[in-house]
Amino acid sequence: MLPYKTLIPLDRQSATLITTQIANTLIRLIRQGILPANTKLPGSRAMAGLLGVHRKTVITAFDELTAQGWLVQQPARGTFVSSELPDIAPRQLTGTPASAGLATTTGYSFRIREQLTLPVLKNTNMLMFDDGFPDVRLAPTAQLARNYRNVLQRSFQQRLLGYADTNGDLFFRQQLAHYLHDSRGIPASPEHIFTTRGSVMAIYLLAQILLQPNDIVVVGKPNYRSANLIFAERGATLIHLPVDTHGLDIDALEAQCRQQPVRMVFVTPHHHHPTTVTLSAERRIRLLQLAEHYGFVVLEDDYDYDFHYASSPILPLASADAAGMVVYIGSFTKSIAPAFRVGYVVAPPNLIEALGYYRRIIDRQGDTVLEQAIAEMLAEGDIQRHLKKAQKIYQQRRDVFCGLLRDRLGDAVSFTIPDGGMAVWTRFNDRIDLTALAAACHKQGLIIGNGRFYQPDEPVVHHTRLGFASSTPEEMEQGTHIIQKVLATLVP
Amino acid sequence: MLPYKTLIPLDRQSATLITTQIANTLIRLIRQGILPANTKLPGSRAMAGLLGVHRKTVITAFDELTAQGWLVQQPARGTFVSSELPDIAPRQLTGTPASAGLATTTGYSFRIREQLTLPVLKNTNMLMFDDGFPDVRLAPTAQLARNYRNVLQRSFQQRLLGYADTNGDLFFRQQLAHYLHDSRGIPASPEHIFTTRGSVMAIYLLAQILLQPNDIVVVGKPNYRSANLIFAERGATLIHLPVDTHGLDIDALEAQCRQQPVRMVFVTPHHHHPTTVTLSAERRIRLLQLAEHYGFVVLEDDYDYDFHYASSPILPLASADAAGMVVYIGSFTKSIAPAFRVGYVVAPPNLIEALGYYRRIIDRQGDTVLEQAIAEMLAEGDIQRHLKKAQKIYQQRRDVFCGLLRDRLGDAVSFTIPDGGMAVWTRFNDRIDLTALAAACHKQGLIIGNGRFYQPDEPVVHHTRLGFASSTPEEMEQGTHIIQKVLATLVP
Repeated sequence: MLPYKTLIPLDRQSATLITTQIANTLIRLIRQGILPANTKLPGSRAMAGLLGVHRKTVITAFDELTAQGWLVQQPARGTFVSSELPDIAPRQLTGTPASAGLATTTGYSFRIREQLTLPVLKNTNMLMFDDGFPDVRLAPTAQLARNYRNVLQRSFQQRLLGYADTNGDLFFRQQLAHYLHDSRGIPASPEHIFTTRGSVMAIYLLAQILLQPNDIVVVGKPNYRSANLIFAERGATLIHLPVDTHGLDIDALEAQCRQQPVRMVFVTPHHHHPTTVTLSAERRIRLLQLAEHYGFVVLEDDYDYDFHYASSPILPLASADAAGMVVYIGSFTKSIAPAFRVGYVVAPPNLIEALGYYRRIIDRQGDTVLEQAIAEMLAEGDIQRHLKKAQKIYQQRRDVFCGLLRDRLGDAVSFTIPDGGMAVWTRFNDRIDLTALAAACHKQGLIIGNGRFYQPDEPVVHHTRLGFASSTPEEMEQGTHIIQKVLATLVP
Repeated sequence: MLPYKTLIPLDRQSATLITTQIANTLIRLIRQGILPANTKLPGSRAMAGLLGVHRKTVITAFDELTAQGWLVQQPARGTFVSSELPDIAPRQLTGTPASAGLATTTGYSFRIREQLTLPVLKNTNMLMFDDGFPDVRLAPTAQLARNYRNVLQRSFQQRLLGYADTNGDLFFRQQLAHYLHDSRGIPASPEHIFTTRGSVMAIYLLAQILLQPNDIVVVGKPNYRSANLIFAERGATLIHLPVDTHGLDIDALEAQCRQQPVRMVFVTPHHHHPTTVTLSAERRIRLLQLAEHYGFVVLEDDYDYDFHYASSPILPLASADAAGMVVYIGSFTKSIAPAFRVGYVVAPPNLIEALGYYRRIIDRQGDTVLEQAIAEMLAEGDIQRHLKKAQKIYQQRRDVFCGLLRDRLGDAVSFTIPDGGMAVWTRFNDRIDLTALAAACHKQGLIIGNGRFYQPDEPVVHHTRLGFASSTPEEMEQGTHIIQKVLATLVP
């Protein structure tokens, strides 16, 4: 007889009824071929004894399985696995019980989009000069947790926990409208605002709605990699135009527009990603004029507006957009912490409406509770106070970091001190193999990018972004010391 | 002279520096044409007096704007709006100040996908027999809020607030693997699990990865509408096969497979959406065999496995899938509340990996804090206890509701008492115009669907889903009373 006691483990703490556990396990055993067709099961009394349960529990399970067609009860003969079920070949159990029944590869093929592979950052306590992320240790988690709990408690009465407006919570959009007006001169009202899970979702949704396959999208060379992947996946044709110290080359853009109809220009004007340069005031105005003249969409990803050290930030393009050419994207990823996935689109209401249609089929709706918790932080000025504090700290860190790069790494690196943002676009000199450097640093406990992420199509890469905002002066000290040591071994 | 004091309102409570506020507002005024090129500004002393700020604050703002090219300072003559900036036509301010600068429609066209329009459910305190949603008033919000706060506090040390694994939090996937094994016999391990924002995102991602345009996807007639929209948007060809009292017609599927290669079959076998019928055990096994023989993907959306009243639930197809043909989708939408957007895919690891690539470009990552909070509820058995309690309540509500439908509405309706789930698939008799009924009920304070959502292509619709789980017996009493009254006026 089969070892039923082992094959049918019962969990008496489980919320699942014992009789259900028995029935479910028996079905699995039949399906896995461990109990082939026509197998005679022990009688209900014997089975009850084996499993240590009441006989009635077993009878209920057998009856249920008989009703479902898995078992056949023959008077005076006993209970059998049904022979009328399609024949299932016995299958050998392999691996641990927990993964026995599930395949390790699919039984069909599918397109793996090589290009979509992006490095996945695991949480780590290693030192890291990242792409330019905020220091989550500074995040105002206490206020956020308090607000979250309060909203949850209130929402109980308000039915806020059900399905909600796909465009985002109204209170959040109201507070955000005030904030955008006060902080960056964007005269938005709630109907101009669409809430997303961050800038990636915003760009993705806009690409689906605004682009058709083969549409021309102009981007900087280099450009924010995730945006390029999204446009390419949509089937758009990417035109890469030069970026100089004043940002995207607008003369080149105008020449391009004369040649072929441009559908969209993607810019990160406040600080170009990855090079950190700022699009000059004059080029901004020309860009808006070209957009109106040639009828293209300006997609403005203002991912780090909040962090500007040298002078007051230049207002976003969206603040001067009266013709409806600019779609503005922002997020709280950098302002609070990446884990809180709230971003937004500012655009004319007819586009906002279309975004809602598409959002419905990729994500239904956002996180109402989190949006309300953040809205309260905006209303109370918590976010503004946090940013004021963080801005000061990051400015100090920028100065410390640039000093360390200069003093420790000398002529191995060259860079321009960034006006703002959270990273330094660093050029390592020609003798340095960045891939080898990054790998060697990793062994010493420091993570840095090897630059390929930013320029995947270049044969040789000398630049990478080194983020300073997420490291304390002590960590920057240790990290640059590692680079210094590794350089000494790589370039004798 | 222009009314600078009015044009440049200053907010001394704001986190934005006063000098920045002045500069930003001046830029906006220049861009809006209120300050045309060559306008002479008041001197710094006069401006400081007008605005009630220190003169140095104004000088700093003017210097910054001069550096940015917006202003020109001419010795002994004064400060002017730059004439070298491209000319901006003065633009009349219209509407409220808050929306003055933003357009109401875009300056370019875009495809509005009519088919994507879905009804948006606003939060409301009206009575509602919905599509079959849980009662959020029963949701275990206290535990969830407590866990959320605890995770936030811990995550402070753990760098959990940064960018995270796109596939989902590991602790969540571990707990979910246990839960799936115990509650429904799916022998998953964490590498078989991919976390999403709910079943909609799961279906969307899978459609992008598994389907090519013109691939054949078989669905029931009728079928879960959102899934149909997603497949259609992907460019798939939908084949609608009949659904009878035992679920999807597998003979028809086999005939279809012989005719043309089928790429995917979408099923909600536990309770077919919208009709609530259960796919029989025999058909399940035939479906798996056909999948293996013909090489198609079985997409199993098990959205309401947790709610089964008549007998123990039949195990999911995924629990018997050793050939890697089944992709299993579940979510906590119905188990906790729709506002907590955590769903998942169970599939072979090579498909999970591909899902991660695509997820990166639509949503980057999920909500680590929420996932950990839910994982703790699974580990502590909070979810299981909640479901046990909710299941009892919903079963009572089903019985009350079916009784009310029978007693109050009599032969105006016909229906089969559902084995599980949260809604009754209700047929109104031929004399009743469902659209008129739904509209009249709405006026009386009750929201019900007019059925078009489920059968958008049918000329006449007689069925709709009436959800009972989210209403108390008193609310069901009031709601059915409204239908009864309205029917009396509609069908005299």
